[in-house]
Amino acid sequence: MTRMVSELLQAFRKVRKRSVELASSLSPEDQQVQSMPDASPTKWHLAHTTWFFETVLLVPHAPGYVLFHDHFPFLFNSYYEALGPRHERAQRGLLTRPSLGEVHAYRRHVDAAVMALIEMADRDSFDRIEPIVTLGLHHEEQHQELILTDILHAFSCNSLMPAYRAESRERPRGPHSSKVATTQAVAYPIEWLRQPGGIVGIGHAGQGFCFDNELPRHETLLRPYEIAHRLVTCGDYASFIADGGYRRPELWLSDGWAMVQREHLAAPLYWRGIDDGNCENDPSGWLVFGLDGLEPMNPRAPVSQLSFYEAAAYAEWAGARLPTEFEWEAAFDAPGITQMTGHVWQWTRSSYDPYPGFRPLPGVAAEYNGKFMVGQLVLRGGSLATPPGHTRPSYRNFFPPAARWQFSGVRLVRDI
Amino acid sequence: MTRMVSELLQAFRKVRKRSVELASSLSPEDQQVQSMPDASPTKWHLAHTTWFFETVLLVPHAPGYVLFHDHFPFLFNSYYEALGPRHERAQRGLLTRPSLGEVHAYRRHVDAAVMALIEMADRDSFDRIEPIVTLGLHHEEQHQELILTDILHAFSCNSLMPAYRAESRERPRGPHSSKVATTQAVAYPIEWLRQPGGIVGIGHAGQGFCFDNELPRHETLLRPYEIAHRLVTCGDYASFIADGGYRRPELWLSDGWAMVQREHLAAPLYWRGIDDGNCENDPSGWLVFGLDGLEPMNPRAPVSQLSFYEAAAYAEWAGARLPTEFEWEAAFDAPGITQMTGHVWQWTRSSYDPYPGFRPLPGVAAEYNGKFMVGQLVLRGGSLATPPGHTRPSYRNFFPPAARWQFSGVRLVRDI
Amino acid sequence: MTRMVSELLQAFRKVRKRSVELASSLSPEDQQVQSMPDASPTKWHLAHTTWFFETVLLVPHAPGYVLFHDHFPFLFNSYYEALGPRHERAQRGLLTRPSLGEVHAYRRHVDAAVMALIEMADRDSFDRIEPIVTLGLHHEEQHQELILTDILHAFSCNSLMPAYRAESRERPRGPHSSKVATTQAVAYPIEWLRQPGGIVGIGHAGQGFCFDNELPRHETLLRPYEIAHRLVTCGDYASFIADGGYRRPELWLSDGWAMVQREHLAAPLYWRGIDDGNCENDPSGWLVFGLDGLEPMNPRAPVSQLSFYEAAAYAEWAGARLPTEFEWEAAFDAPGITQMTGHVWQWTRSSYDPYPGFRPLPGVAAEYNGKFMVGQLVLRGGSLATPPGHTRPSYRNFFPPAARWQFSGVRLVRDI
Amino acid sequence: MTRMVSELLQAFRKVRKRSVELASSLSPEDQQVQSMPDASPTKWHLAHTTWFFETVLLVPHAPGYVLFHDHFPFLFNSYYEALGPRHERAQRGLLTRPSLGEVHAYRRHVDAAVMALIEMADRDSFDRIEPIVTLGLHHEEQHQELILTDILHAFSCNSLMPAYRAESRERPRGPHSSKVATTQAVAYPIEWLRQPGGIVGIGHAGQGFCFDNELPRHETLLRPYEIAHRLVTCGDYASFIADGGYRRPELWLSDGWAMVQREHLAAPLYWRGIDDGNCENDPSGWLVFGLDGLEPMNPRAPVSQLSFYEAAAYAEWAGARLPTEFEWEAAFDAPGITQMTGHVWQWTRSSYDPYPGFRPLPGVAAEYNGKFMVGQLVLRGGSLATPPGHTRPSYRNFFPPAARWQFSGVRLVRDI
Repeated sequence: MTRMVSELLQAFRKVRKRSVELASSLSPEDQQVQSMPDASPTKWHLAHTTWFFETVLLVPHAPGYVLFHDHFPFLFNSYYEALGPRHERAQRGLLTRPSLGEVHAYRRHVDAAVMALIEMADRDSFDRIEPIVTLGLHHEEQHQELILTDILHAFSCNSLMPAYRAESRERPRGPHSSKVATTQAVAYPIEWLRQPGGIVGIGHAGQGFCFDNELPRHETLLRPYEIAHRLVTCGDYASFIADGGYRRPELWLSDGWAMVQREHLAAPLYWRGIDDGNCENDPSGWLVFGLDGLEPMNPRAPVSQLSFYEAAAYAEWAGARLPTEFEWEAAFDAPGITQMTGHVWQWTRSSYDPYPGFRPLPGVAAEYNGKFMVGQLVLRGGSLATPPGHTRPSYRNFFPPAARWQFSGVRLVRDI
Repeated sequence: MTRMVSELLQAFRKVRKRSVELASSLSPEDQQVQSMPDASPTKWHLAHTTWFFETVLLVPHAPGYVLFHDHFPFLFNSYYEALGPRHERAQRGLLTRPSLGEVHAYRRHVDAAVMALIEMADRDSFDRIEPIVTLGLHHEEQHQELILTDILHAFSCNSLMPAYRAESRERPRGPHSSKVATTQAVAYPIEWLRQPGGIVGIGHAGQGFCFDNELPRHETLLRPYEIAHRLVTCGDYASFIADGGYRRPELWLSDGWAMVQREHLAAPLYWRGIDDGNCENDPSGWLVFGLDGLEPMNPRAPVSQLSFYEAAAYAEWAGARLPTEFEWEAAFDAPGITQMTGHVWQWTRSSYDPYPGFRPLPGVAAEYNGKFMVGQLVLRGGSLATPPGHTRPSYRNFFPPAARWQFSGVRLVRDI
Repeated sequence: MTRMVSELLQAFRKVRKRSVELASSLSPEDQQVQSMPDASPTKWHLAHTTWFFETVLLVPHAPGYVLFHDHFPFLFNSYYEALGPRHERAQRGLLTRPSLGEVHAYRRHVDAAVMALIEMADRDSFDRIEPIVTLGLHHEEQHQELILTDILHAFSCNSLMPAYRAESRERPRGPHSSKVATTQAVAYPIEWLRQPGGIVGIGHAGQGFCFDNELPRHETLLRPYEIAHRLVTCGDYASFIADGGYRRPELWLSDGWAMVQREHLAAPLYWRGIDDGNCENDPSGWLVFGLDGLEPMNPRAPVSQLSFYEAAAYAEWAGARLPTEFEWEAAFDAPGITQMTGHVWQWTRSSYDPYPGFRPLPGVAAEYNGKFMVGQLVLRGGSLATPPGHTRPSYRNFFPPAARWQFSGVRLVRDI
Repeated sequence: MTRMVSELLQAFRKVRKRSVELASSLSPEDQQVQSMPDASPTKWHLAHTTWFFETVLLVPHAPGYVLFHDHFPFLFNSYYEALGPRHERAQRGLLTRPSLGEVHAYRRHVDAAVMALIEMADRDSFDRIEPIVTLGLHHEEQHQELILTDILHAFSCNSLMPAYRAESRERPRGPHSSKVATTQAVAYPIEWLRQPGGIVGIGHAGQGFCFDNELPRHETLLRPYEIAHRLVTCGDYASFIADGGYRRPELWLSDGWAMVQREHLAAPLYWRGIDDGNCENDPSGWLVFGLDGLEPMNPRAPVSQLSFYEAAAYAEWAGARLPTEFEWEAAFDAPGITQMTGHVWQWTRSSYDPYPGFRPLPGVAAEYNGKFMVGQLVLRGGSLATPPGHTRPSYRNFFPPAARWQFSGVRLVRDI
């Protein structure tokens, strides 16, 4: 019991500290900004994750707990209908008050109360609160990824193109760190790994934490297929562009082609042509914006910031297809497979539907996943922005097919 | 061979004639109107189905065929990118020219050419053209249903509430055709039919016609479940409304709740309250608009014109769920089951994804189904507006979750 | 008295007949269509002008008059708040019922009642009803112009480019009716007519009919100026285009330049380039759509279908300016001036503000003009689509600055 | 000459310092935010006014001047087309970089260069630069008002309702500073001041600075009228509301009534009902948000934050009308008149049209006023947020009729 308490405290401190550290290189102004309705300000993420602990853990379970501020539940509730009205999502960037300093004070207030609650807990209370704390930490880790994707989007709207990791600008550059992009990369062919299919187990197994949408564990029936041992690279994707990929409707789903035309898409979200040009005909001119700022396109790096539509069009062009989420999960430990996590989320050809027998979590957390199960696609894996250790083979991320601001890329499969 | 020719000719004549008959009670003005971007004018349907035969059959396969009008391919192409630019979808209602008379002449011109082509065909040609003719007829049958759903939507925008089947206004009314709605319907309980699940075959089998999205036939694994022997009725749905169904966010998917609030939904699309009121508290005041005009709500009739969101919220309220399309198909012949087709399309809990191994039809028809496989939900069954014999157990209809103007309703299932 | 009765009857018959004649070359489908919210279907114009007589004249003044149809006031009220709710403006095109035939019957019913009312009137009644009948006739004449501008807009959305005056297509063409546009027009220089300014009388004077917005007659003070003796021609305007007029922000008002960019304006609304090209660099390639269909641009014809923004940008480019409505009115009878009416409405540099001491008409007609006196610009003159005799020197037409579908052009003035 | 130099330096220092002081109570986050496209962040105002001096004064007139930052002209150009492309207006709030600190450094850099330029100037240079410096200072004063109106709008979007002048929260409140609103105000009747009309001079006269839109001075002809000696108060306006002002279409211009219905207007922009209610029936429940936060409505205070539509509807209800801008200017020194400036801007019934003979300033400043002369209404006077001494009797402010976030109110006139 003591060890469990101390482990939970340690996990709590570690996750909470990491959020603050992720924001530490950002000014109060950076942390204020909301660049589109789907993104949120850093400051809001810091406050919302705190509100989650306050609301789901402290208010019901910490006797005598007093809200840090009566009005914060209105300001920092994201989408929980059961918890009453809330500040409009698209206007989170207007909340200049509370200040960043006040949000840090809010974090400290709640941290102290949570840690006291954990420390004081007897066996029964611990068993009650531990799953809530753990859920809160996984929730906060999800927002840690959003802190990065959202500030990157905000920075991409500023023609100064600021770098989140500003120090990288000064790092010494030898002959091998040339700033000139090249598609003359050493050949880097895909190996196709045969998978037998058949009846496979899907969903979370074992004791550890998982979200409700990974359950229940169940069986599904797969045909044989083969899966690429690596992700699609920027170099691969530049060839798709050079081959007219964004001008050939036959490669696209109907909604995707409509988006290409309506928004004049011609490259991934953060690709820029040298001198503001389109580099369809000269891939060496592509620059890619990322956490280190604007850099020459690296042809061996996994392509990122794709919508599902672009991912699917690429696969069509490549004579392959996207994996279903079940194929992806079944191949997780395939010998020879690489880059399954830690680089980019991988769009699957699976709509985000409930698993057979799915039931949402009880109570407030019922709104965590289930109510979003329509109109979205599943992504699997995890990205360079995902906190280490956050995901599992059964982990289901999801976004609408038009979403482009995530670290989202492609892995191919083929029928046999 | 002769019999095959004569059967094909007979099928062709029958389907083509039925389209014209469906429109025969509508004035040239009725046939001109487009009430929203998703709906099309009757006249456009009559021309577009003709254009399909001209473009896919006559131009490539009828030597010496001359287009009826050089510009009609631009006007009457629906969404085939491979066939060049086309008139904007949302502006089909602006095409007052060609007149309805000219469209009828266009139909006669194409009909004559198609029939001549069939009659003249030798064995080889017949084998080439028969599948195209058959596809064109099934295509036209789909538009026959749309002629009805689309004109009904247009009429619903006119506060005169015209009846498509105007004669119904005059039909004699005895004591049993009272115009007063009642929910005092004879009890009509659902029987739950147990289904064993297991590995089941899905998709079209056998020789007859099917669309490409019903293929390939494959196996899937189902858990045991039980399915309602009948559809959800208007009386059932009125109870959902009376219980605050449209005011309780916990019953709704997130996108659905957003739609309820944004569009102030409070009843199915074609329900009207007596004296323009909301009849949440008095179901006997509901009127329902349909092909016979505005009539008192019949509590035993299947509820119709629901979005997927409403269907799913109803199921949640009823303590059940929507079937997957596989559960629906597997239960098609279940003993005791009724109303599987001919009443309303039944929303399933399955996103419209490709079957394993799916390949689109070759050529122009590649754009028929596959490019729409994202962002939509599958409906199964067939409605009172579907041409008799048009559907099969494996038939997959699909619409976006917000679509409300179709004859779309609900059948429930439950986990065991 | 008898003569006054017979003159009023004659005027009534003449105006009412003219509306029907204007529509006589249009099919029921043509008369059904509404191509944008600002335009209305021909059928609606025919019904609305009839509703005006029914509502403003017959219901209050014809004892025992029975409405032709209880629901028509809801359908055919345009914007009179005092007369209750009404069908949504942007959805007039959805009213396939009543049919065109029923609308004609409505016209006949109301015509008979109006004529009976006039014929039966004693002196007192005549004095009461005569101004209302006269207002109704001027109202109908305004809609006669709209019948033409609105159907022309609808036809312009159809790539078949139908001609309102179809017979013109067949008319024999000699060497002088060449279909090749030319800007080699005989020189056609503007003569600048000096006007002294000073205190001038503005607004309607005398006994005849005028709208309330032309009153009260009052004095205003003008500086000396000079006014062009003719309108700006298509040839003039083609030179503006060729000189980069649509690409030079310094020529444009801010809202106008925003519109140019947002809507990619490059020529007047109904100008088309040969082979769908932009003819900026080759004015002989311009075609202009009008009541006779698509014809080569005539460089001596007055330019038409301009927004106020385009008119003002042209004037800036030409080193001149638009007249105020007072300058225009004061120059109406200037010796040597031509084309003041009967060709195009002429945008003035005057916002549509009330005259000093303006009071709206009493009763329902109060909503006729006054409530629109903000956000619009005054046009003066009258166009080829205006019924002969409809306008006066004091007549004030008005449209928002972005309106382009009217027969609206330019006359220049200069400071001295 | 020395005195002129020292006076210009003193004026420059004073105005520049005042901008910084106005922002000094705002956090970096407050200064970052843009609450709607029409408003700008405080930080942007601070940078843009600096850019104006850099661009219009230093670059052309200070030999050897080096831009503070190459990219700032792109970021901080507001709307000057002649000065090249610029950051999108609606996205000014996304510019978290440069930081507030960098913007202050930018100000210091430019201030030093401007002061050096002034100090070094010989007679000729001084005559060239003095008008530009003066224009820049008046420009900056205009933005000082916007700093206040824009941050107030941002704060109004935050349900915490922060006070710009936070100290006011702590100020001691005696019996006379009761927080309970009352309409039992001492009677405060309007005195109507007769004005003779006739030929009056309009526009700026004399030597001092004015904007180009106040010129040329010219004469206009007015009818006699009478003008209210005071502004319309909150108490007056509460009576309008209580009399159903927002529910009676006959009081409104057509565009105004459409706005009332579309946006559910029921009170001035910053009025809130106690307990979030509408206080139509109990004026003592009204609270008004302002620079001191949310306070009880003071019935004697001038009503503010009205659109032109509301101002005009109020005047109609009160049996009066809005003055033309000429009537307002002619009555500026009328004996007995009060509150002509320093309280609220006063909507006039004059569209913002050019004066006879108007010519824009030469060069870049040509875009300052003239290109906005359509679609806006003139306001006269000056508000509590206007820098003291900034306006003149001939000063013409202008906004679109729907603008509500300014300190804009009403003064009435009547015809005699």
